[in-house]
Amino acid sequence: MSSFRLIKTCPRSQARAGELTTRHGAVATPVFLPVGSQGAVKTLTPEEVKALGMNMVLANTYHLYLRPGISVIKKAGGLHKFMGWEGAILTDSGGYQVFSLAPLRRVSDEGVNFRSHIDGSQHHLSPELVIRHQEALGADIIMALDECPAHDDSPDKVKRAAERTHKWAERCRKAQKRRDQALYAIVQGGVIPELRRQSAEYLASLDFPGYAIGGLSIGEPKEVTLSMVEETVAFLPEDKPRYLMGVGSPEDIVEAVARGCDIFDSALPTRVARNGALFTWQGRRNISNAVYSRMEQPVVADCDCYTCRNFSAAYLHHLFNCGELLAYRLATIHNLSFIGQLMTKIKSAILDGTFPSFKDKFLAGYRSTDERVRLSQKRKWLEKRNLGS
Amino acid sequence: MSSFRLIKTCPRSQARAGELTTRHGAVATPVFLPVGSQGAVKTLTPEEVKALGMNMVLANTYHLYLRPGISVIKKAGGLHKFMGWEGAILTDSGGYQVFSLAPLRRVSDEGVNFRSHIDGSQHHLSPELVIRHQEALGADIIMALDECPAHDDSPDKVKRAAERTHKWAERCRKAQKRRDQALYAIVQGGVIPELRRQSAEYLASLDFPGYAIGGLSIGEPKEVTLSMVEETVAFLPEDKPRYLMGVGSPEDIVEAVARGCDIFDSALPTRVARNGALFTWQGRRNISNAVYSRMEQPVVADCDCYTCRNFSAAYLHHLFNCGELLAYRLATIHNLSFIGQLMTKIKSAILDGTFPSFKDKFLAGYRSTDERVRLSQKRKWLEKRNLGS
Repeated sequence: MSSFRLIKTCPRSQARAGELTTRHGAVATPVFLPVGSQGAVKTLTPEEVKALGMNMVLANTYHLYLRPGISVIKKAGGLHKFMGWEGAILTDSGGYQVFSLAPLRRVSDEGVNFRSHIDGSQHHLSPELVIRHQEALGADIIMALDECPAHDDSPDKVKRAAERTHKWAERCRKAQKRRDQALYAIVQGGVIPELRRQSAEYLASLDFPGYAIGGLSIGEPKEVTLSMVEETVAFLPEDKPRYLMGVGSPEDIVEAVARGCDIFDSALPTRVARNGALFTWQGRRNISNAVYSRMEQPVVADCDCYTCRNFSAAYLHHLFNCGELLAYRLATIHNLSFIGQLMTKIKSAILDGTFPSFKDKFLAGYRSTDERVRLSQKRKWLEKRNLGS
Repeated sequence: MSSFRLIKTCPRSQARAGELTTRHGAVATPVFLPVGSQGAVKTLTPEEVKALGMNMVLANTYHLYLRPGISVIKKAGGLHKFMGWEGAILTDSGGYQVFSLAPLRRVSDEGVNFRSHIDGSQHHLSPELVIRHQEALGADIIMALDECPAHDDSPDKVKRAAERTHKWAERCRKAQKRRDQALYAIVQGGVIPELRRQSAEYLASLDFPGYAIGGLSIGEPKEVTLSMVEETVAFLPEDKPRYLMGVGSPEDIVEAVARGCDIFDSALPTRVARNGALFTWQGRRNISNAVYSRMEQPVVADCDCYTCRNFSAAYLHHLFNCGELLAYRLATIHNLSFIGQLMTKIKSAILDGTFPSFKDKFLAGYRSTDERVRLSQKRKWLEKRNLGS
């Protein structure tokens, strides 16, 4: 059974350092999980993921249920064996994927009917079924089924989704047969502080081994995301891990750590890598930019990742320019290594008691390249909400 | 300077074992060069190519001239450094690529004008320029500029292309300044035995350090390719390496080794890998076939490649089914490893004096999956030639 041990809490922020114990090794927190929705971290072998210092990955029940099918993986001896990964795995339940990917979904108290985003075939998931599937996959940490409302749904709808999520969490726990997997509940409540509080308090009273914060980072401005994280964390137990789902970017991770989150996952680092956007300590840089065409230095001069140790920015620029598949790998390695280096710095700073100054220094240096776009999106979002309310 | 040492010739075929000496290490022959046209073997890092036992790769002057441009690579300290490859490199001159890729080419005795297949921009290559470019790239073996006629061009046109190729070979040698690169001449002559003989004899009289057989495997039936190899090899010197350009498949390599060829390159093993066609000792198999969807064994049971040692056929099937980029890597590794294992077996058999029986056994077991397609193509080709003559 996975368990969590809190090692240190920052005296001047909510940041914490801890350790998860799993059947597949210990995992120091705060931790970032690379996303392997379909049983592979895009472009990388398990050896490479491990060499990046990552020891837990995320996979998606929704994707694996549709392809190759749960029975194929069960027959292969479980997901660890199927994908050749010896580290820890967390599987998401499919609630968010049904919400974000599947067309024509119909949610009822019983569960959710939806069509596959791949071939339009009809499917059904319920709290009992997602537990059965996740027990067959055999991840170390599994998630309860949740209903994720859209960020601009009415307060009523958000409230009903949270209440359903609570009932589903209880049914998931009841359905659980395996005792060697940690089942985390997911807090919902949209962007309404009172609903976040209620959801966190209710689920906390049920004493799950871990809590996820769901339904955020799905279109609302960053300030709102972070404020909702605060509203949720305040009502979660100190001694349980807190998993902020779908976050994120280097700057968002640092902000969320400061607010007491321990676990993160996001496809962002690997997805933007495949678009040529590489993390540097000064922010994201696009390798396709002509300034890199003759740069003989690596993208990040003092980076010790495989990519930067072996290849110039000019070579990477060339590979992207030609659409060579190696480009996507090398960029993925760099971005995941960057996140790994960031998590190491965060952990050290928490243990040293220097996290607040580390955070300030990092955020001052790390300039988001799309600040203007972000502010414009935020303005539109606020306008829309004010009109609607 | 690259040199060649013949170690053993098979007493009952033309097969030979030898060794090339290059500035970047010794290369045992017969040898297959993986193709890295744009300065990368598709999907793989240099470390992976090396781990596959490959110690020479091919790159294309045409591709690198267009992207990133010769000056970028020269500034980076040459192609070895640019692409992070410590083994040997052979660069093709661009003659074949201008013929096969570039639209609107105009060939004159001086050289060739063409448009880029990427952006339509106008370019010029001459014997002197391809040498200058290849000297800047710094490969261990470089190729003379040749004119490659289509396989169904008229005998007159084929003859003129061969004569021009001879003159260009002489101009290439004259233009050569670096003495640490071996310049190979390219035999042309289409599918006309007399022209092949003339081309081989003429170029042999000029005493190049190596000879390539060009203009084959470009649409003519396999029997014709092999027959032309015989017609050419018969007039090439024993003590010089023979490079059959653009071949090929496992069965074609074995046949060409039996006819005295030493060096091979082809994008086929890596290209078909990305389409899910994997080499087995019984022939090519397509991993997308439903029979693999639940196969827990690797694709080739006793294969010691990274892919087969670590992953089931079912996992590979799943990755291809989902379009995961890792699929293309794992399939590429398997196919190149297969070719590497094949070359090792070929070398051992030649040294043991058992090559003819190895060849018969291999070809009896290795059934081409597209035999019917091949025979139909051959019939059409022969009909067309008979009508035309």
